[in-house]
Amino acid sequence: MESYKTLEKIFYKINDLRQTQAVLHWDTATIMPVGGADARSEQLATIESIQHALITDESINELILDAESKLDSLNPWQKSNVIEMRRRWKHASAVPQKLLKEFVKAGSKCEMVWRSAKVDNDFKQLVPALKKVVNLVREIATIKSKTFGCDQYTALLDQYDPGRTTQDLELVFEDLKQFVPGFIAEVIEKQKSRSQLLPLQGNFPMEKQKRLAKEIMKILGFNFNYGRLDESRHPFCGGYPSDIRITTRYDESNLIPGMMGIFHETGHALYEDGLPRSLRGQPVGEARGMSVHESQSLFMEMQVCRSRSFLKYFLPMVKQEFNVDGAQWEVDNVYNSVTKVQPSFIRVDADEVTYPAHILLRYYMEKYLVSGEMEVEDLPDAWDQGMERFLGIRPSSDKEGCMQDIHWMDGTFGYFPSYTIGAIYAAQIAKAIKADKPNFYSDIEQGKFSVIKKWLGVNIHENGSKFSTSELIKQATGSELDITAYKDHLKHRYLDEQEG
Amino acid sequence: MESYKTLEKIFYKINDLRQTQAVLHWDTATIMPVGGADARSEQLATIESIQHALITDESINELILDAESKLDSLNPWQKSNVIEMRRRWKHASAVPQKLLKEFVKAGSKCEMVWRSAKVDNDFKQLVPALKKVVNLVREIATIKSKTFGCDQYTALLDQYDPGRTTQDLELVFEDLKQFVPGFIAEVIEKQKSRSQLLPLQGNFPMEKQKRLAKEIMKILGFNFNYGRLDESRHPFCGGYPSDIRITTRYDESNLIPGMMGIFHETGHALYEDGLPRSLRGQPVGEARGMSVHESQSLFMEMQVCRSRSFLKYFLPMVKQEFNVDGAQWEVDNVYNSVTKVQPSFIRVDADEVTYPAHILLRYYMEKYLVSGEMEVEDLPDAWDQGMERFLGIRPSSDKEGCMQDIHWMDGTFGYFPSYTIGAIYAAQIAKAIKADKPNFYSDIEQGKFSVIKKWLGVNIHENGSKFSTSELIKQATGSELDITAYKDHLKHRYLDEQEG
Repeated sequence: MESYKTLEKIFYKINDLRQTQAVLHWDTATIMPVGGADARSEQLATIESIQHALITDESINELILDAESKLDSLNPWQKSNVIEMRRRWKHASAVPQKLLKEFVKAGSKCEMVWRSAKVDNDFKQLVPALKKVVNLVREIATIKSKTFGCDQYTALLDQYDPGRTTQDLELVFEDLKQFVPGFIAEVIEKQKSRSQLLPLQGNFPMEKQKRLAKEIMKILGFNFNYGRLDESRHPFCGGYPSDIRITTRYDESNLIPGMMGIFHETGHALYEDGLPRSLRGQPVGEARGMSVHESQSLFMEMQVCRSRSFLKYFLPMVKQEFNVDGAQWEVDNVYNSVTKVQPSFIRVDADEVTYPAHILLRYYMEKYLVSGEMEVEDLPDAWDQGMERFLGIRPSSDKEGCMQDIHWMDGTFGYFPSYTIGAIYAAQIAKAIKADKPNFYSDIEQGKFSVIKKWLGVNIHENGSKFSTSELIKQATGSELDITAYKDHLKHRYLDEQEG
Repeated sequence: MESYKTLEKIFYKINDLRQTQAVLHWDTATIMPVGGADARSEQLATIESIQHALITDESINELILDAESKLDSLNPWQKSNVIEMRRRWKHASAVPQKLLKEFVKAGSKCEMVWRSAKVDNDFKQLVPALKKVVNLVREIATIKSKTFGCDQYTALLDQYDPGRTTQDLELVFEDLKQFVPGFIAEVIEKQKSRSQLLPLQGNFPMEKQKRLAKEIMKILGFNFNYGRLDESRHPFCGGYPSDIRITTRYDESNLIPGMMGIFHETGHALYEDGLPRSLRGQPVGEARGMSVHESQSLFMEMQVCRSRSFLKYFLPMVKQEFNVDGAQWEVDNVYNSVTKVQPSFIRVDADEVTYPAHILLRYYMEKYLVSGEMEVEDLPDAWDQGMERFLGIRPSSDKEGCMQDIHWMDGTFGYFPSYTIGAIYAAQIAKAIKADKPNFYSDIEQGKFSVIKKWLGVNIHENGSKFSTSELIKQATGSELDITAYKDHLKHRYLDEQEG
């Protein structure tokens, strides 16, 4: 018990540093003046190194070993906390600090090169920096795979989505590979019979968008005593429980994208807000991992807010706020707009049906890059072929092809799959809630979100990292990772044109 | 040289943590949701303790001793840097960590009690918490005075204004004690012959105030690539060079107070921005101390922006921005308004002439509290007597009396004098610039501030902490702390009604 208490103290301290990093990251993405970038990098590097030193201190392994040998004296939360501490320690101590520093530096460098290479649409410019990053990722994956006794790609996945394995993904992505391209074609054919879309463009002053956004966030369950809404180039959810900061990007001529960003990030925010209060600051009190996190945002955005029921509730608010009206603001037209399927080049703008194709492509690309079956130089061709294969379109430039995402540039390999695993979990969760709460859609239509929030609270949020991801999802939905619910949802919504 | 280089590295790291604290403090004061307060305290405490551990590490004293023994191998900047490192180490290591923690905790506690005691106007409620703080301040002052070989109050002054002694202050404040009350009466009598003030109230939408503020800040020399303007309850200048963040408070019915806040903080900001670039991140690269810092803000606010010349330049901007006009916006009326002298209870709202009376009072109060010549219980009576003595008015409540300022509550004793020393330095600096640049006022009237910025840059800003405060001021103005320039300025402006 004594070792456990000592560990708790150390992890509270580590948590303070992690939260500080979260504030600095948020600040960088939202309001930092451009000239502050260099100082900010130094601050982040120093805090990271202090944190790394704390967690890799020689005493930590001893303390964890001791706590592990006395698990019987701990309650279930504490036991799970020890497991999470071990996991953090394992990842932090596996890689020599020198290699880690080199990796971080190469990532920053590559990100910088990428920004200008992307503007110039010049992949060649990017190659040396990205090769360096990929080589270091391979090196780290090799070390971790040996230490953890798993394959290399699993070692990377585990960094973002604890417990996730290449094998899980193979099952899912092999299925999706078969399913997605044909399904997209079917949906496009089906949607030809929809009425002509009326454009939703107009004049939506930013201040009014913000006002509306805050109103709907509150209705969805966001508490502004413990969080904020701001703007950034890419929407994200930052901060930490008690100070959760979501951002979006507003387009004054088009309301919908900014609002969808807000719905998505509100899903993330409710998860953070609902994490177990008494475990705040300890590893077990944190969100389970990226796929569960993404399940929460996608559940909110895709399952709740892109439904006809939600639009029935929300569109009157829009009409009132912006004093707009007309056939284009009828539920059917807006619904057809937010469920319109159309292959496109840019992942972050993709619709619900084509999105998994973007992830499939990235999954195979990064797996082959890590294993060495592919080299950085091969990326543009392989990318274009993959786009052709999965989406039937070919980007006319690398800038809207393999250079569009930041992820690989800063060394984030093994993250992309979380988006699609999250979408699958979201569908499983939706199925489970609907079975449990038959008034799901009628509640939404009336703007009653408390039942949903409570269900997510009890079944997902309040569990923090007490269970493994698959245990958590199984307890919540009755099954482990289950692609059927996801495919059923897509078929139901996009072929049957049904809700519920 | 090797020790020096090692020290440099450690102090860069300490600087990263100090800058991080600056971001967290700014965030707390401007945008943090209320619910984030607890997490923020923990973050700040953790970063403070890491920083304290770094600077009090056993090796530091050895390294500084070694560097001190090899000063000949260092250039003048490096020599001064070693002096500043020693000073930092001296302050950090003098007080046992346990006592320091107790002090910080007592300060937070007292600040909290103060907030509600102030609302309730109930000094008794505050007494136990403030006594605890005062006792700890006495303890710290005693330890530091023994370690540093100086009197107790000097030990406290040195924390905020390196090199400042009780003796300096005695000279100045004994003089002011004689001068101020009579001078206030003279000025009030004199101002009776001014025309009746026309009120400046109106409708000044916040967005327009911000726009105007940013425009005038740029003209004064503020670079928004390296800084921001935001809002907070009390105006301040936060951040650090490359990311300087000033704040103000807007009143939509009255333009002037918010703008004066901006001019003041812009003075601070230009100092930070002008600090020597190549020494950034080292102690010698930082601002010299609080009295010099305050000299920069007061120079900008009092000497530059409360002049007729400045108003001649600025008022047309105001008229255009807010579409206002009329006799009340004539230079004479606005000038009479911003130089109006009137004893009042609240320091932060005081005019230039009555301000030193507020500081005199606080100087004697805090000196007696620290020495034990006065106890916390005696404060309300002593305060009211002091107000009567220096300003001829008696507050009707402790809330607008001895409970108005936050300073003592969190343990800040020895800080108040910097405001008046800063005002004196500002007058010395103005005298020196005017002698050097005879076009001082005509430049201001034409909105040409570059000459002034450059003069301050060369003579003050770019010196960082290379020299002691008195050396710096002597080099810049030709004399050490010199109350004559200040009194001359006041007489010239308020009795002779002259500019320049």
